[in-house]
Amino acid sequence: MHPNDIEGFFTTRAAIDPEAYLELTFTFECAGDPRAAAAHLASEQSTAQWHRVGVKEDFRPKFAAKVLELEAEPVAAFSLPLGVVPPGPVHRCRAVIAHPWNNFGPRLPNLITAVMGEGIFFAPGIPIIRLEDMRFPEAFLAHFDGPQFGIAGVRTRLQVYDRPIFFGVIKPNIGLAPEPFSELGYEGWMGGLDIAKDDEMLADAPYSPLAERAALLGAARRRAEQETGVPKGFLANITDEVDRLAALHDVAVNAGATMVMVNAMPVGVSGVRALRRVATVPIVTHFPFIAAFSRVPTHGVHSRVFTRLQRLAGADVVIMPGFGDRMMTPASEVRECVHACLEPMGNIKPSLPVPGGSDNAATLEGVFRQVGTVDFGFVPGRGVFAHPMGPRGGAASLHQAWAAIASGVPVAEHARRHAELAAVFGVSVE
Amino acid sequence: MHPNDIEGFFTTRAAIDPEAYLELTFTFECAGDPRAAAAHLASEQSTAQWHRVGVKEDFRPKFAAKVLELEAEPVAAFSLPLGVVPPGPVHRCRAVIAHPWNNFGPRLPNLITAVMGEGIFFAPGIPIIRLEDMRFPEAFLAHFDGPQFGIAGVRTRLQVYDRPIFFGVIKPNIGLAPEPFSELGYEGWMGGLDIAKDDEMLADAPYSPLAERAALLGAARRRAEQETGVPKGFLANITDEVDRLAALHDVAVNAGATMVMVNAMPVGVSGVRALRRVATVPIVTHFPFIAAFSRVPTHGVHSRVFTRLQRLAGADVVIMPGFGDRMMTPASEVRECVHACLEPMGNIKPSLPVPGGSDNAATLEGVFRQVGTVDFGFVPGRGVFAHPMGPRGGAASLHQAWAAIASGVPVAEHARRHAELAAVFGVSVE
Repeated sequence: MHPNDIEGFFTTRAAIDPEAYLELTFTFECAGDPRAAAAHLASEQSTAQWHRVGVKEDFRPKFAAKVLELEAEPVAAFSLPLGVVPPGPVHRCRAVIAHPWNNFGPRLPNLITAVMGEGIFFAPGIPIIRLEDMRFPEAFLAHFDGPQFGIAGVRTRLQVYDRPIFFGVIKPNIGLAPEPFSELGYEGWMGGLDIAKDDEMLADAPYSPLAERAALLGAARRRAEQETGVPKGFLANITDEVDRLAALHDVAVNAGATMVMVNAMPVGVSGVRALRRVATVPIVTHFPFIAAFSRVPTHGVHSRVFTRLQRLAGADVVIMPGFGDRMMTPASEVRECVHACLEPMGNIKPSLPVPGGSDNAATLEGVFRQVGTVDFGFVPGRGVFAHPMGPRGGAASLHQAWAAIASGVPVAEHARRHAELAAVFGVSVE
Repeated sequence: MHPNDIEGFFTTRAAIDPEAYLELTFTFECAGDPRAAAAHLASEQSTAQWHRVGVKEDFRPKFAAKVLELEAEPVAAFSLPLGVVPPGPVHRCRAVIAHPWNNFGPRLPNLITAVMGEGIFFAPGIPIIRLEDMRFPEAFLAHFDGPQFGIAGVRTRLQVYDRPIFFGVIKPNIGLAPEPFSELGYEGWMGGLDIAKDDEMLADAPYSPLAERAALLGAARRRAEQETGVPKGFLANITDEVDRLAALHDVAVNAGATMVMVNAMPVGVSGVRALRRVATVPIVTHFPFIAAFSRVPTHGVHSRVFTRLQRLAGADVVIMPGFGDRMMTPASEVRECVHACLEPMGNIKPSLPVPGGSDNAATLEGVFRQVGTVDFGFVPGRGVFAHPMGPRGGAASLHQAWAAIASGVPVAEHARRHAELAAVFGVSVE
């Protein structure tokens, strides 16, 4: 880019209509002049050739992405091993860019293409870059439906208020036939689970067809509802080819599922949005693949960006990697994803955040303290279904832990008076 | 995992039915014992709880992923900055794992969930991991249609044999109204382009509706065909929400598009497969987002894995980051993606590889030498549409360069006898 052209890719917030732009925060490492690199980054994601050869015209005022903020500090070298390293002095930078969404319209695949596509990851001189966050103006959000039920709708259906929603992932997750699988669900509900769910890897599998599994779980769920007198949820994983999602939704719901799950990246956030248009029950999204591009702190896309996109696409519930070393995700990142579910977002309802990963009754209090609200879901797998007293005991231990938390009693102390909770802590009952 | 349980996740090729398993190659860095880490990696992607509590059963023989090969060497520390670092001595490892595809069936979202999902990126002790490659048995491939036309079909439609296919990305890509945009396409075809194409960021945009653009390009294309006497292609970018792809395909094709493009990750490879079921023209896929998870050499997913998935899903043409420092991709990686398009793959036809990125007539020979065959597409943007003699000159320069290559004359020498090629090399005509 000619030095004179760089200025056309810089502006100020006062000079633009905020409703016409997405605001993107990037961190990146560049070779050469940071100001030229940031201009390339804006140019390549929008109108890199802004006039025809021999024609006096300039598409930049209306169509260019523009740099609003830029900070740069010199560093010794690129922080990652790279196959191809551009030459020149290296800077570590942070930039905020305004991207005109009229370039593509309110469509998720085109949004992803524009703000996480070739223009971002192949901007000259910038081999390392991460999209850290994205903010949408209300004019953009108004084109989206977002969650159909949201947190309030999910609570109403379950008649559960003022405490976390207790999910349980039925285990063994892979290999178990539908009949014994449904028996485990029944035991979990009888112990107090709000929602028994399929594992994210178990969908319409050859050894466990969805129609058969959903019918058996539906019957078991109704039985548990009659015996306990409270609503119970069965969350069926309908993750499949995108042109089967609507049909599998109907199969699952007609058989007795009360919610449906899709894995957000494997079906695509656009697949989630398409499902939202036809769904009659809450949609739950799950997180496979996201760590492939979000774990490295300096390159890729921050996980909260895709949390926002799942909410925008219509996820009533978002399951995300949770707290604790086991899930290898910094606590600050988990909280940022939780907030992306809960914070105001124009006309878009909040999604229920479910930070998950190898939880059990002993980890409930820590998750609650980190989240800072009861508006979350708690989703043990083996913590319920491999409990030494079986799934009924595992589910009961969650309620016992919550009773202690709600009444200000130390959970480990409470365990000494409740056998199911005691088994989780490995202590004996007094 | 108990030490006695580790052995259940190891096997040998001789002990398993190769048609029942995908073969996955991973590289990873782990804390603690590499053999335990590899067992966890296999366990977490399949049946991590392989029996019910209190029931004597073992799902591992049929449902477990199993380690076939493992190499490990001690290293001083993890190679990447990480938010959460597991404790213990660090090893850098390579493992080949057999994954039973009956666990999920021949479905792309479920495949992605199983082999690039939570089980891979959250296996205990393994914070850094990359899926390097994936090989499919013929029994799995038999469930897929793959490309409808393939390289041979694309060549027949264009009547172009024995040389690369010349694509050109019409530029300015963003901001130009359909009428002058179609005029640029016409000029490109008249200069010798086989296919004029939309930029990957230009789809059904507010300022350039697909129906209007495709109708104008269709008319311009027919005019160019009549005047040149050879078939011309217009490649329309129909990337959009997945439930609009089939309708936009029809809009584009009825108006005059001869091929359709979708951005593979933004619509999802399952969206590509769904489009394949209804498409009547060749499908071209493009590469936005892939660098987010493939650029870091030690974490994420190697780009050739998604090249294979695009081919499996039915892409007749795969556009990928090409050669040269500008695209920040090692030449070996580009060649591996090219080979993933071309090599034998059961019943699945080859896809035409199009390694692209800031090419022009001067880079054609280098690409041809790297690819090693004429079966590739060449896709300049500004190299044709910002040519000082206009798109007609830019397109002509490609044919002039190829004529030199085909007859063994140095291209730079040939440039001295052809004004359009001379302009690319910045030399004067003799």
